[in-house]
Amino acid sequence: MSKPSIGFVGLGAMGFGMATHLVKEGYPVHGFDVFPASVERFKAAGGIPASSLQDSAKEKDFYVCMVASAPQVQSVLFGDDALPKNATLLLCSTVPASYAQSVAAELASIGRSDISFIDAPVSGGALRAAAGTLSIMAGAPDAALENGRFLLQEMSDANKLYLVPGGIGAGSNMKMVHQVLAGIHILGASEAQGFAARLGLDAVKTAEAIKSSPAWSWMHENRLQRMLDEDWHPGASALTIILKDVGIITTSARQSQFPTPLCSTAEQVYLSALLQGYGPVDDSSMVRQYFAEPITKVSSTKAEEETAEALQLVLDLMEVTNLVAAAEAISFARYLKVDLKQFYTLVADAAGASRQFMTKGLEIIEGLGQDVSGETVEGATARLEKAVQKARDLHCPLNLGNAALSVLFMAKKSGLGAEGSASVVKAFEN
Amino acid sequence: MSKPSIGFVGLGAMGFGMATHLVKEGYPVHGFDVFPASVERFKAAGGIPASSLQDSAKEKDFYVCMVASAPQVQSVLFGDDALPKNATLLLCSTVPASYAQSVAAELASIGRSDISFIDAPVSGGALRAAAGTLSIMAGAPDAALENGRFLLQEMSDANKLYLVPGGIGAGSNMKMVHQVLAGIHILGASEAQGFAARLGLDAVKTAEAIKSSPAWSWMHENRLQRMLDEDWHPGASALTIILKDVGIITTSARQSQFPTPLCSTAEQVYLSALLQGYGPVDDSSMVRQYFAEPITKVSSTKAEEETAEALQLVLDLMEVTNLVAAAEAISFARYLKVDLKQFYTLVADAAGASRQFMTKGLEIIEGLGQDVSGETVEGATARLEKAVQKARDLHCPLNLGNAALSVLFMAKKSGLGAEGSASVVKAFEN
Repeated sequence: MSKPSIGFVGLGAMGFGMATHLVKEGYPVHGFDVFPASVERFKAAGGIPASSLQDSAKEKDFYVCMVASAPQVQSVLFGDDALPKNATLLLCSTVPASYAQSVAAELASIGRSDISFIDAPVSGGALRAAAGTLSIMAGAPDAALENGRFLLQEMSDANKLYLVPGGIGAGSNMKMVHQVLAGIHILGASEAQGFAARLGLDAVKTAEAIKSSPAWSWMHENRLQRMLDEDWHPGASALTIILKDVGIITTSARQSQFPTPLCSTAEQVYLSALLQGYGPVDDSSMVRQYFAEPITKVSSTKAEEETAEALQLVLDLMEVTNLVAAAEAISFARYLKVDLKQFYTLVADAAGASRQFMTKGLEIIEGLGQDVSGETVEGATARLEKAVQKARDLHCPLNLGNAALSVLFMAKKSGLGAEGSASVVKAFEN
Repeated sequence: MSKPSIGFVGLGAMGFGMATHLVKEGYPVHGFDVFPASVERFKAAGGIPASSLQDSAKEKDFYVCMVASAPQVQSVLFGDDALPKNATLLLCSTVPASYAQSVAAELASIGRSDISFIDAPVSGGALRAAAGTLSIMAGAPDAALENGRFLLQEMSDANKLYLVPGGIGAGSNMKMVHQVLAGIHILGASEAQGFAARLGLDAVKTAEAIKSSPAWSWMHENRLQRMLDEDWHPGASALTIILKDVGIITTSARQSQFPTPLCSTAEQVYLSALLQGYGPVDDSSMVRQYFAEPITKVSSTKAEEETAEALQLVLDLMEVTNLVAAAEAISFARYLKVDLKQFYTLVADAAGASRQFMTKGLEIIEGLGQDVSGETVEGATARLEKAVQKARDLHCPLNLGNAALSVLFMAKKSGLGAEGSASVVKAFEN
């Protein structure tokens, strides 16, 4: 049986990988993009160029939307001469859940409830897009998911297709709460390495110590080499990308009046960097917000004991900040009624992972009081406090460290000081 | 009767003004500074140059210390061959209360309880220092205050000598909680004008609207001209000065584990600017953290209605942020057992003043529930939320606005949404 034709719009870095992967798998893929050069490139890679958005949709029973700004395309897709009856539409762009829901509402209001609409944001980067091994977080009514499942499976890794309960918007919410962690950890990696440089610590040795400690985060490990090489132009992951995702988070959080102090703090640093011209540059360049020179220029002259003490401050900063980040992400997820066990499974194997999330986060999800570390809120506060004070003495900004410390102080004021450190989550849930 | 000799150390911008004013009033003032050029300048202005710190102290019954880093001098002052028996020592430097208390403890431990030690930080700038019209916040045992009163009076305005109850440390705490407001409002002025520029608003018209609105702050009015002229080199008030004061606040707050999220946020922006080379530059240059060009370059092309709407966002940002700033400062003051009525009187006539402090701050001090504005926490939150969202849409950082919004969200989560907006103070005092 021949494979069905697929319409595709949005042939940027991610979309191009996804669409050409489908081509390799034997699908006739009709691709469109507002940039003619992208369509040409797609044609050269074996795709079928569409002459217009309408052309890409006409008579296609299956359609994938992977544009940066989805609102531009929907009216065309739904108009006359566009998606045929009973078509399946995958919205793979990263959008607020409320936007995905508005699309479903529009479909109903214009009498196109026949369309199987799936809210299916993806994650994993351009390489995995091209390999068909993305993570996909798909939410929709069961019937729609059934229709689109083969396509979701083609584009995702077998273990990384998450069928998210909760219908339209649930997939986007799942991606969003994952990005809370990603958005914080990207800056956190720079903040920790910048602080280490200010302390006169060797960058590589510090990074090795972080990797094997409770301060580990996926983002730190992933961004490290680019940070060391200052390999930023063009960015493998441009600042504007994480800034867009973080904007969705803080905008949605404001709509819910839910506090996301760490994510919001990260956003402010990203916006300041944008003003300084860092927009198209790799996000690992944020280390320069903390240290004015390449961090590899630091050559440590400290005695062994002094080095160990300074290193401990960096580990404490990162570990406690990541703990508060886990609390912020999980409490927001819980507020949004995201399936927390699925969220945990997803994060464990994705870019938002951190050792704190894996341990204390699990405690938060499964029920406080397991006391996985034996440390109290007060104990974690004391460690972070020491790191923040040292940074202040060195005139080093620690945006996330200070924001996390404010949350911990608020938690202490609420009487949580003597509870296990994972109880900091209650500062978000009182 | 001839006037007594006075020893003086620290002939920087403030100290020079204070010491030369005493010279004009007919006192023989023996001045010392680590920079010989400052001593020379003092000599040229009619002062008596001291050849050493010891020389400046020897046989002086009255001594004023106005150095940036007090710990360097105290051991010399208290040693043999230094301050005579029953001398009076005014520590006018801005220091943490805990430092002033450590000096008192040291005096007791080395058997120099005969010295009348007064913790007496000053405020008002170099011009008022030279005119003898400073604000002085003096704390000490009554007997010591009695001995030093004439000298405090010589250097201060008749209405601005605050004898602060609470002994040693109380003066420094009073100055510190005042600086919470100053440290936030300095950045707040830049944040508001930078946001206005991003909105395409005329800088001067915006400033005029701020002045006559509930968003007014003394700092905004004071810094405005320098911000418009970009008259920053050298700074009339260098970034490093407010950064030092803010560092005392956040360090003391950490020691008390008291959250000061706005002040701490301002500090992070100041530290980032320091890294960018803004240290010696006037603090009104912080506007460049929000807008990349001189704000006077903006020429508004908006229709009248659109202009009014945009302006309202700026006013809302500044007003609600200043409300949260007032809550942060007053709650910290209350925690430190600062006399709140005196604090209010002092701020009303000083650089920390804002219309929000004068109205909602008074409500906080005199007892919540007077509902001076009729607005709820929820109402204030909604206004700030709108401004913050607009800034995000424009990619404009709003560090303080976002931090204030996080505090308001936390307050709402604590069930304060329907209470009068001044109740946001409870977010710091739960």
